[in-house]
Amino acid sequence: MADEALFEFLHMEIVSHIYKEQQSGKAEMDNKDRAVCVSVLEGMGFRVGQGLIERLTRDSPSFKDELDIMKFICKDFWTKVFRRQVDNLRTNHQGTYVLQDNKFAMLTQLSSGKQYLDQAPKYLAFSCGVVRGALSNLGMESVVTAEVSVMPSCKFQVVIQKL
Amino acid sequence: MADEALFEFLHMEIVSHIYKEQQSGKAEMDNKDRAVCVSVLEGMGFRVGQGLIERLTRDSPSFKDELDIMKFICKDFWTKVFRRQVDNLRTNHQGTYVLQDNKFAMLTQLSSGKQYLDQAPKYLAFSCGVVRGALSNLGMESVVTAEVSVMPSCKFQVVIQKL
Repeated sequence: MADEALFEFLHMEIVSHIYKEQQSGKAEMDNKDRAVCVSVLEGMGFRVGQGLIERLTRDSPSFKDELDIMKFICKDFWTKVFRRQVDNLRTNHQGTYVLQDNKFAMLTQLSSGKQYLDQAPKYLAFSCGVVRGALSNLGMESVVTAEVSVMPSCKFQVVIQKL
Repeated sequence: MADEALFEFLHMEIVSHIYKEQQSGKAEMDNKDRAVCVSVLEGMGFRVGQGLIERLTRDSPSFKDELDIMKFICKDFWTKVFRRQVDNLRTNHQGTYVLQDNKFAMLTQLSSGKQYLDQAPKYLAFSCGVVRGALSNLGMESVVTAEVSVMPSCKFQVVIQKL
Protein backbone atom coordinates (compact mmCIF):
# COMPACT_ATOMS: atom_id res chain seq x y z
CA MET A 1 0.00 0.00 0.00
CA ALA A 2 2.59 2.57 0.98
CA ASP A 3 4.19 2.89 -2.41
CA GLU A 4 0.84 3.86 -3.84
CA ALA A 5 0.12 6.21 -0.99
CA LEU A 6 3.63 7.62 -1.17
CA PHE A 7 3.16 8.49 -4.79
CA GLU A 8 -0.33 9.88 -4.26
CA PHE A 9 0.65 12.06 -1.33
CA LEU A 10 3.72 13.34 -3.17
CA HIS A 11 1.61 14.11 -6.22
CA MET A 12 -0.83 16.12 -4.08
CA GLU A 13 2.06 18.07 -2.57
CA ILE A 14 3.43 18.89 -5.97
CA VAL A 15 0.14 20.09 -7.33
CA SER A 16 -0.34 22.34 -4.35
CA HIS A 17 3.26 23.61 -4.47
CA ILE A 18 3.06 24.52 -8.13
CA TYR A 19 -0.26 26.30 -7.79
CA LYS A 20 0.96 28.18 -4.73
CA GLU A 21 4.17 29.30 -6.38
CA GLN A 22 2.29 30.51 -9.45
CA GLN A 23 -0.24 32.38 -7.35
CA SER A 24 2.37 33.92 -5.03
CA GLY A 25 0.98 37.18 -3.77
CA LYS A 26 -1.93 37.43 -6.18
CA ALA A 27 -5.44 37.23 -4.76
CA GLU A 28 -6.75 35.20 -7.68
CA MET A 29 -5.20 33.15 -10.43
CA ASP A 30 -6.26 33.95 -13.95
CA ASN A 31 -6.52 31.50 -16.82
CA LYS A 32 -2.97 32.20 -17.90
CA ASP A 33 -1.65 31.31 -14.45
CA ARG A 34 -3.64 28.11 -14.47
CA ALA A 35 -2.30 27.24 -17.90
CA VAL A 36 1.26 27.68 -16.63
CA CYS A 37 0.60 25.29 -13.74
CA VAL A 38 -0.97 22.70 -15.98
CA SER A 39 1.94 22.97 -18.36
CA VAL A 40 4.55 22.51 -15.60
CA LEU A 41 2.74 19.43 -14.26
CA GLU A 42 2.25 18.07 -17.74
CA GLY A 43 5.96 18.46 -18.43
CA MET A 44 6.86 16.54 -15.29
CA GLY A 45 4.44 13.81 -16.30
CA PHE A 46 5.96 13.69 -19.76
CA ARG A 47 9.42 12.90 -18.45
CA VAL A 48 8.06 10.40 -15.92
CA GLY A 49 6.08 8.67 -18.67
CA GLN A 50 9.19 8.42 -20.81
CA GLY A 51 11.09 6.79 -17.97
CA LEU A 52 8.31 4.36 -17.14
CA ILE A 53 7.70 3.14 -20.66
CA GLU A 54 11.39 2.58 -21.13
CA ARG A 55 11.43 0.17 -18.21
CA LEU A 56 8.18 -1.48 -19.19
CA THR A 57 9.07 -2.19 -22.79
CA ARG A 58 12.65 -3.28 -22.16
CA ASP A 59 11.75 -6.92 -22.73
CA SER A 60 8.71 -6.45 -24.97
CA PRO A 61 8.63 -7.46 -28.60
CA SER A 62 8.21 -4.54 -30.95
CA PHE A 63 4.74 -3.34 -31.84
CA LYS A 64 3.17 -3.96 -35.19
CA ASP A 65 1.20 -0.74 -35.57
CA GLU A 66 -0.29 2.29 -33.86
CA LEU A 67 -3.33 0.41 -32.58
CA ASP A 68 -1.08 -2.26 -31.14
CA ILE A 69 0.78 0.42 -29.17
CA MET A 70 -2.47 1.95 -27.95
CA LYS A 71 -3.64 -1.44 -26.72
CA PHE A 72 -0.40 -1.88 -24.82
CA ILE A 73 -0.91 1.54 -23.22
CA CYS A 74 -4.48 0.68 -22.24
CA LYS A 75 -3.63 -2.70 -20.75
CA ASP A 76 -0.07 -3.18 -19.53
CA PHE A 77 0.96 0.42 -19.07
CA TRP A 78 -2.29 1.54 -17.46
CA THR A 79 -2.28 -1.42 -15.07
CA LYS A 80 1.25 -0.72 -13.90
CA VAL A 81 0.83 3.02 -13.57
CA PHE A 82 -2.84 3.54 -12.71
CA ARG A 83 -3.51 0.09 -11.22
CA ARG A 84 -6.31 -1.00 -13.54
CA GLN A 85 -6.97 -1.39 -17.24
CA VAL A 86 -8.71 1.22 -19.32
CA ASP A 87 -12.40 0.29 -19.47
CA ASN A 88 -12.98 1.33 -23.01
CA LEU A 89 -10.84 2.27 -25.99
CA ARG A 90 -12.37 3.88 -29.05
CA THR A 91 -10.78 5.23 -32.20
CA ASN A 92 -11.87 6.90 -35.41
CA HIS A 93 -9.02 5.07 -37.19
CA GLN A 94 -7.62 8.45 -38.18
CA GLY A 95 -5.30 8.99 -35.26
CA THR A 96 -7.77 9.94 -32.54
CA TYR A 97 -8.22 7.65 -29.56
CA VAL A 98 -10.54 7.96 -26.60
CA LEU A 99 -9.56 6.07 -23.45
CA GLN A 100 -12.25 5.78 -20.84
CA ASP A 101 -11.31 4.88 -17.26
CA ASN A 102 -14.38 4.63 -15.02
CA LYS A 103 -12.40 4.75 -11.80
CA PHE A 104 -9.30 6.72 -12.50
CA ALA A 105 -6.61 6.25 -9.84
CA MET A 106 -5.71 9.93 -9.57
CA LEU A 107 -9.30 10.92 -8.88
CA THR A 108 -10.32 8.26 -6.37
CA GLN A 109 -8.90 10.29 -3.47
CA LEU A 110 -11.22 13.17 -4.33
CA SER A 111 -14.94 13.23 -3.61
CA SER A 112 -17.05 11.43 -6.15
CA GLY A 113 -19.75 13.18 -8.13
CA LYS A 114 -19.86 16.60 -9.65
CA GLN A 115 -19.08 18.81 -6.68
CA TYR A 116 -15.37 19.35 -7.30
CA LEU A 117 -15.34 18.99 -11.07
CA ASP A 118 -13.60 22.35 -11.47
CA GLN A 119 -10.63 20.99 -9.48
CA ALA A 120 -10.14 17.99 -11.74
CA PRO A 121 -7.78 19.55 -14.30
CA LYS A 122 -5.18 20.16 -11.58
CA TYR A 123 -5.06 16.47 -10.81
CA LEU A 124 -5.07 15.25 -14.40
CA ALA A 125 -2.32 17.36 -15.95
CA PHE A 126 0.44 15.11 -14.67
CA SER A 127 -1.33 11.98 -15.95
CA CYS A 128 -1.89 13.48 -19.39
CA GLY A 129 1.84 14.14 -19.50
CA VAL A 130 2.61 10.58 -18.45
CA VAL A 131 0.56 9.20 -21.35
CA ARG A 132 2.07 11.66 -23.84
CA GLY A 133 5.60 10.83 -22.63
CA ALA A 134 5.04 7.10 -22.95
CA LEU A 135 3.66 7.44 -26.48
CA SER A 136 6.44 9.79 -27.47
CA ASN A 137 9.07 7.25 -26.46
CA LEU A 138 7.31 4.70 -28.64
CA GLY A 139 7.59 7.07 -31.58
CA MET A 140 4.11 8.58 -31.49
CA GLU A 141 3.90 12.33 -30.93
CA SER A 142 0.49 13.26 -29.60
CA VAL A 143 -1.69 15.76 -27.82
CA VAL A 144 -3.35 14.28 -24.73
CA THR A 145 -6.23 15.91 -22.92
CA ALA A 146 -8.57 14.70 -20.21
CA GLU A 147 -12.20 15.33 -19.55
CA VAL A 148 -14.27 14.49 -16.48
CA SER A 149 -18.01 14.67 -16.31
CA VAL A 150 -18.57 12.66 -13.12
CA MET A 151 -15.74 11.78 -10.75
CA PRO A 152 -13.89 9.43 -10.55
CA SER A 153 -14.55 8.57 -14.18
CA CYS A 154 -12.24 10.12 -16.74
CA LYS A 155 -11.94 10.22 -20.50
CA PHE A 156 -8.56 10.78 -22.15
CA GLN A 157 -8.38 11.96 -25.71
CA VAL A 158 -5.20 11.19 -27.60
CA VAL A 159 -4.70 12.87 -30.94
CA ILE A 160 -1.70 11.56 -32.83
CA GLN A 161 0.31 14.25 -34.59
CA LYS A 162 1.18 13.13 -38.07
CA LEU A 163 4.45 14.57 -39.30
CA MET B 1 7.45 -2.26 -10.01
CA ALA B 2 5.76 0.73 -11.58
CA ASP B 3 4.48 2.21 -8.37
CA GLU B 4 8.00 2.34 -7.07
CA ALA B 5 9.34 3.71 -10.32
CA LEU B 6 6.46 6.17 -10.54
CA PHE B 7 7.32 7.56 -7.15
CA GLU B 8 11.04 7.64 -7.84
CA PHE B 9 10.69 9.38 -11.17
CA LEU B 10 8.26 11.91 -9.74
CA HIS B 11 10.61 12.57 -6.84
CA MET B 12 13.47 13.23 -9.27
CA GLU B 13 11.28 15.65 -11.22
CA ILE B 14 10.36 17.56 -8.11
CA VAL B 15 13.92 17.87 -6.92
CA SER B 16 14.99 19.20 -10.29
CA HIS B 17 11.98 21.53 -10.55
CA ILE B 18 12.59 23.07 -7.15
CA TYR B 19 16.29 23.60 -7.73
CA LYS B 20 15.63 25.10 -11.15
CA GLU B 21 12.99 27.47 -9.87
CA GLN B 22 15.27 28.65 -7.06
CA GLN B 23 18.20 29.15 -9.41
CA SER B 24 16.13 30.91 -12.08
CA GLY B 25 18.45 33.23 -13.94
CA LYS B 26 21.36 33.03 -11.53
CA ALA B 27 24.58 31.46 -12.74
CA GLU B 28 25.28 29.76 -9.42
CA MET B 29 23.23 28.91 -6.37
CA ASP B 30 24.61 30.03 -3.04
CA ASN B 31 24.17 28.26 0.28
CA LYS B 32 21.07 30.25 1.07
CA ASP B 33 19.41 29.15 -2.19
CA ARG B 34 20.29 25.56 -1.44
CA ALA B 35 18.85 25.87 2.05
CA VAL B 36 15.57 27.15 0.59
CA CYS B 37 15.34 24.14 -1.73
CA VAL B 38 16.09 21.69 1.04
CA SER B 39 13.49 23.34 3.21
CA VAL B 40 10.77 23.19 0.52
CA LEU B 41 11.47 19.51 -0.11
CA GLU B 42 11.62 18.78 3.60
CA GLY B 43 8.24 20.45 4.06
CA MET B 44 6.69 18.32 1.34
CA GLY B 45 8.14 15.23 2.97
CA PHE B 46 6.79 16.30 6.34
CA ARG B 47 3.21 16.40 5.09
CA VAL B 48 3.63 13.14 3.17
CA GLY B 49 5.06 11.47 6.29
CA GLN B 50 2.09 12.64 8.33
CA GLY B 51 -0.32 11.16 5.82
CA LEU B 52 1.53 7.87 5.58
CA ILE B 53 1.83 7.25 9.30
CA GLU B 54 -1.84 8.00 9.76
CA ARG B 55 -2.73 5.19 7.38
CA LEU B 56 -0.13 2.83 8.78
CA THR B 57 -1.08 3.18 12.41
CA ARG B 58 -4.84 3.17 11.89
CA ASP B 59 -5.10 -0.37 13.21
CA SER B 60 -2.01 -0.45 15.39
CA PRO B 61 -2.15 -0.67 19.16
CA SER B 62 -0.75 2.39 20.89
CA PHE B 63 2.94 2.58 21.63
CA LYS B 64 4.34 2.21 25.10
CA ASP B 65 7.23 4.65 24.88
CA GLU B 66 9.57 6.64 22.65
CA LEU B 67 11.80 3.67 21.89
CA ASP B 68 8.77 1.61 20.93
CA ILE B 69 7.80 4.28 18.40
CA MET B 70 11.33 4.43 17.01
CA LYS B 71 11.33 0.67 16.54
CA PHE B 72 8.05 0.89 14.65
CA ILE B 73 9.56 3.58 12.41
CA CYS B 74 12.65 1.46 11.75
CA LYS B 75 10.73 -1.71 10.96
CA ASP B 76 7.16 -1.28 9.73
CA PHE B 77 7.31 2.30 8.51
CA TRP B 78 10.69 1.98 6.83
CA THR B 79 9.66 -1.26 5.09
CA LYS B 80 6.50 0.28 3.70
CA VAL B 81 8.08 3.54 2.62
CA PHE B 82 11.69 2.70 1.80
CA ARG B 83 11.20 -1.01 1.06
CA ARG B 84 13.59 -2.43 3.66
CA GLN B 85 14.20 -2.26 7.38
CA VAL B 86 16.74 0.03 8.94
CA ASP B 87 19.94 -1.97 9.39
CA ASN B 88 20.94 -0.48 12.68
CA LEU B 89 19.31 1.69 15.33
CA ARG B 90 21.36 3.30 18.05
CA THR B 91 20.38 5.70 20.79
CA ASN B 92 22.05 7.57 23.63
CA HIS B 93 18.83 7.11 25.65
CA GLN B 94 18.59 10.89 25.87
CA GLY B 95 16.47 11.54 22.83
CA THR B 96 19.03 11.09 20.06
CA TYR B 97 18.64 8.21 17.64
CA VAL B 98 20.85 7.17 14.75
CA LEU B 99 19.20 5.08 12.03
CA GLN B 100 21.58 3.45 9.62
CA ASP B 101 20.29 2.18 6.26
CA ASN B 102 23.04 0.52 4.23
CA LYS B 103 21.11 0.61 0.99
CA PHE B 104 18.81 3.56 1.16
CA ALA B 105 16.03 3.43 -1.44
CA MET B 106 16.32 7.07 -2.48
CA LEU B 107 20.03 6.70 -3.24
CA THR B 108 20.07 3.41 -5.12
CA GLN B 109 19.26 5.15 -8.40
CA LEU B 110 22.39 7.26 -8.08
CA SER B 111 25.91 5.99 -8.67
CA SER B 112 27.44 4.17 -5.75
CA GLY B 113 30.62 5.34 -4.10
CA LYS B 114 31.87 8.80 -3.28
CA GLN B 115 31.73 10.49 -6.67
CA TYR B 116 28.40 12.30 -6.28
CA LEU B 117 28.39 12.72 -2.52
CA ASP B 118 27.81 16.46 -2.88
CA GLN B 119 24.50 15.74 -4.64
CA ALA B 120 23.15 13.57 -1.84
CA PRO B 121 21.48 16.30 0.28
CA LYS B 122 19.11 17.11 -2.60
CA TYR B 123 17.82 13.58 -2.61
CA LEU B 124 17.56 13.19 1.16
CA ALA B 125 15.68 16.32 2.16
CA PHE B 126 12.29 14.85 1.26
CA SER B 127 13.03 11.65 3.20
CA CYS B 128 14.15 13.56 6.30
CA GLY B 129 10.83 15.37 6.14
CA VAL B 130 8.93 12.10 5.80
CA VAL B 131 10.53 10.77 8.99
CA ARG B 132 9.97 14.02 10.88
CA GLY B 133 6.32 14.14 9.74
CA ALA B 134 5.67 10.57 10.83
CA LEU B 135 7.21 11.16 14.26
CA SER B 136 5.34 14.41 14.66
CA ASN B 137 2.02 12.68 14.08
CA LEU B 138 2.95 10.21 16.80
CA GLY B 139 3.54 13.09 19.18
CA MET B 140 7.31 13.36 18.91
CA GLU B 141 8.67 16.65 17.62
CA SER B 142 12.16 16.17 16.25
CA VAL B 143 14.96 17.43 14.06
CA VAL B 144 15.95 14.92 11.40
CA THR B 145 19.16 15.17 9.41
CA ALA B 146 20.87 12.74 7.06
CA GLU B 147 24.51 12.03 6.42
CA VAL B 148 26.11 9.99 3.67
CA SER B 149 29.70 8.92 3.59
CA VAL B 150 29.50 6.25 0.88
CA MET B 151 26.46 5.87 -1.36
CA PRO B 152 23.95 4.23 -1.14
CA SER B 153 24.43 3.95 2.61
CA CYS B 154 22.82 6.64 4.73
CA LYS B 155 22.69 7.59 8.38
CA PHE B 156 19.71 9.52 9.76
CA GLN B 157 20.03 11.38 13.00
CA VAL B 158 16.82 12.05 14.89
CA VAL B 159 16.99 14.45 17.79
CA ILE B 160 13.80 14.58 19.82
CA GLN B 161 12.81 18.07 20.93
CA LYS B 162 11.75 18.01 24.55
CA LEU B 163 9.15 20.62 25.35
